[in-house]
Amino acid sequence: MSVEDIRPLAWQGDAMTGALRMLDQRRIPTAEEWLTFHTVADVARSIRDMAVRGAPAIGLAAAYGMVLAAQEAAKLPDARAREVLDRSRQALAATRPTAVNLFWALERCQAQVEQDASPEAMLACARALHEADVAGNRRMAESGAAHLEDGMGVLTHCNAGPLATGGVGTALGVIIRAHQQGKRLHVYVDETRPRLQGARLTAWELSRAGVPHTLICDNMAAPLMARGKIQFAITGADRIAANGDTANKIGTYSVAVNAAHHGVTFTVAAPLSTLDASLKDGAAIPIEERDAAEVTQWGDGLTCPPGTRVYNPAFDVTPHTLIRALFTDAGEVSPVNAEGIARLLSKAKAKGTGT
Amino acid sequence: MSVEDIRPLAWQGDAMTGALRMLDQRRIPTAEEWLTFHTVADVARSIRDMAVRGAPAIGLAAAYGMVLAAQEAAKLPDARAREVLDRSRQALAATRPTAVNLFWALERCQAQVEQDASPEAMLACARALHEADVAGNRRMAESGAAHLEDGMGVLTHCNAGPLATGGVGTALGVIIRAHQQGKRLHVYVDETRPRLQGARLTAWELSRAGVPHTLICDNMAAPLMARGKIQFAITGADRIAANGDTANKIGTYSVAVNAAHHGVTFTVAAPLSTLDASLKDGAAIPIEERDAAEVTQWGDGLTCPPGTRVYNPAFDVTPHTLIRALFTDAGEVSPVNAEGIARLLSKAKAKGTGT
Repeated sequence: MSVEDIRPLAWQGDAMTGALRMLDQRRIPTAEEWLTFHTVADVARSIRDMAVRGAPAIGLAAAYGMVLAAQEAAKLPDARAREVLDRSRQALAATRPTAVNLFWALERCQAQVEQDASPEAMLACARALHEADVAGNRRMAESGAAHLEDGMGVLTHCNAGPLATGGVGTALGVIIRAHQQGKRLHVYVDETRPRLQGARLTAWELSRAGVPHTLICDNMAAPLMARGKIQFAITGADRIAANGDTANKIGTYSVAVNAAHHGVTFTVAAPLSTLDASLKDGAAIPIEERDAAEVTQWGDGLTCPPGTRVYNPAFDVTPHTLIRALFTDAGEVSPVNAEGIARLLSKAKAKGTGT
Repeated sequence: MSVEDIRPLAWQGDAMTGALRMLDQRRIPTAEEWLTFHTVADVARSIRDMAVRGAPAIGLAAAYGMVLAAQEAAKLPDARAREVLDRSRQALAATRPTAVNLFWALERCQAQVEQDASPEAMLACARALHEADVAGNRRMAESGAAHLEDGMGVLTHCNAGPLATGGVGTALGVIIRAHQQGKRLHVYVDETRPRLQGARLTAWELSRAGVPHTLICDNMAAPLMARGKIQFAITGADRIAANGDTANKIGTYSVAVNAAHHGVTFTVAAPLSTLDASLKDGAAIPIEERDAAEVTQWGDGLTCPPGTRVYNPAFDVTPHTLIRALFTDAGEVSPVNAEGIARLLSKAKAKGTGT
């Protein structure tokens, strides 16, 4: 599978009887295994258990989940149908709290439900969101790639590649595009504890894209910066507040602090669907805490004495002051602040792109 | 085993026929297993393979290793004996390059060899170094503990407890002493990728000492600092240059950068044997790179695609400007700079303590 062809989600069959196919990201890089889901409950579980992850991909999985809800609803009388659609939306919304793309996608689907909740219409809606995501990522990649220079060392954290989106990726899309333009880059990949999405997914995607890269533990980026090996850092985002404060995978904030200390350019790439203009700043972004076992389980054993207390937030918030530029599907914001983001949003609204 | 009684090394039997007993730190916290070594080659392997680790403990293991060398030498004619002692010293010195305590201890042993290389004399020398280490750690703990205040959140990285030394510990000795003084502390323990000494060893020691603690991934300390949960950070050291630049476990530098960014006090605790006055600054400290498998191996599987390129330095260097205070067995240095360290060394020389 070439990196261009990586799509973590695909609809199989027709709208009425088809199913959602999902690449099980927990198995990569060991196996490329596709799961097939026929019910909303199964899709919700797949999001919660992180068979699919990455803010934009979660949103699209939920949109396809609503097609399965529409299939069930189509067999029922109107009042019951509406109940099924409502309950399905709520079940999908309750899976993960931080990535706002999930709620954004469910709002888009709800608007479709109000108009026409047939499986055909819901599938067309999900597919349109999916295609818009991929097309937006291509624009974002083009705009971000212009900032990467030949010979640069680039740090990325977690996974913001095709697997995290409908395809192409956000931060990794930028890097891969610059590589395709012939710029010689070397990418340092944070393994990204505790779930190792960097090691498992980003290294896998970069190797498919032929981009030279080196895997490091998260705590090794700082000395590489001190030695001048890294000039540029780029990550995705799970939710961006109105002032540009950005929630992303735990560890991103430490990357941004270290980048600031070493004069490394720290940037974020995310579609407009990641913006949550209803939140003034990052303090209001809900941060999911996940099971201690993600930290303590090592193969079949434990990393620590049984019963050790663990703190395991899945995300952290990087203040906008540490972010040099934000690349979106509707253009670029730099410096990143409330004014810049408001300007981008009103420009996008005028053009009818993005949200 | 109470934390007061933890000793990673012990000599068993008499000088002539006895052996070195070593707690296998790779098995903790799963098992408390003691290894018995009768040859220098086995001791050298145990250092290289990290059955024993921690700069002061490595130095003491080498000193006991030289007793085994003396046993072998005692059975040989003078010229051959000298050859065995020389070769043994070289084998022990070649195990790990960064921690200077290893070379410091071997120098002390060499001075003893020049005087009297009998197993009895060599064992007395190793035991004296061991006892001096524990006594020095007690002084260091007392001096450092005075800086910890009731109610503080304290971050530590890697393991600098009794297991890393002859007993009592350096950074963890400071924390445990403050706890024993009745100060209510909460310790955040960096798991410390890739070998997880924080999760495996520090959490084990803190639980034995009854100090409240929470295990985190290395990349989670920054958001805790941003939320005001951490006021103080303290680590051990593997080599300190004449100007105070400090090599310690990989990840320490990122802790120091984050501490500086958040106004958290970052400190180091280490005996004088960790000072390498022959190096002007940290740039000259040799940094050991270890096997990629430490990063890529996860239980029985891999964290990344086979063949992924890895960078795995075991240590990094924190510039003295980021270190608020250095606690040693001969007193405290603050601010940490060449003048302060020179003053400490000349005071220690006058008193005949430490190096």
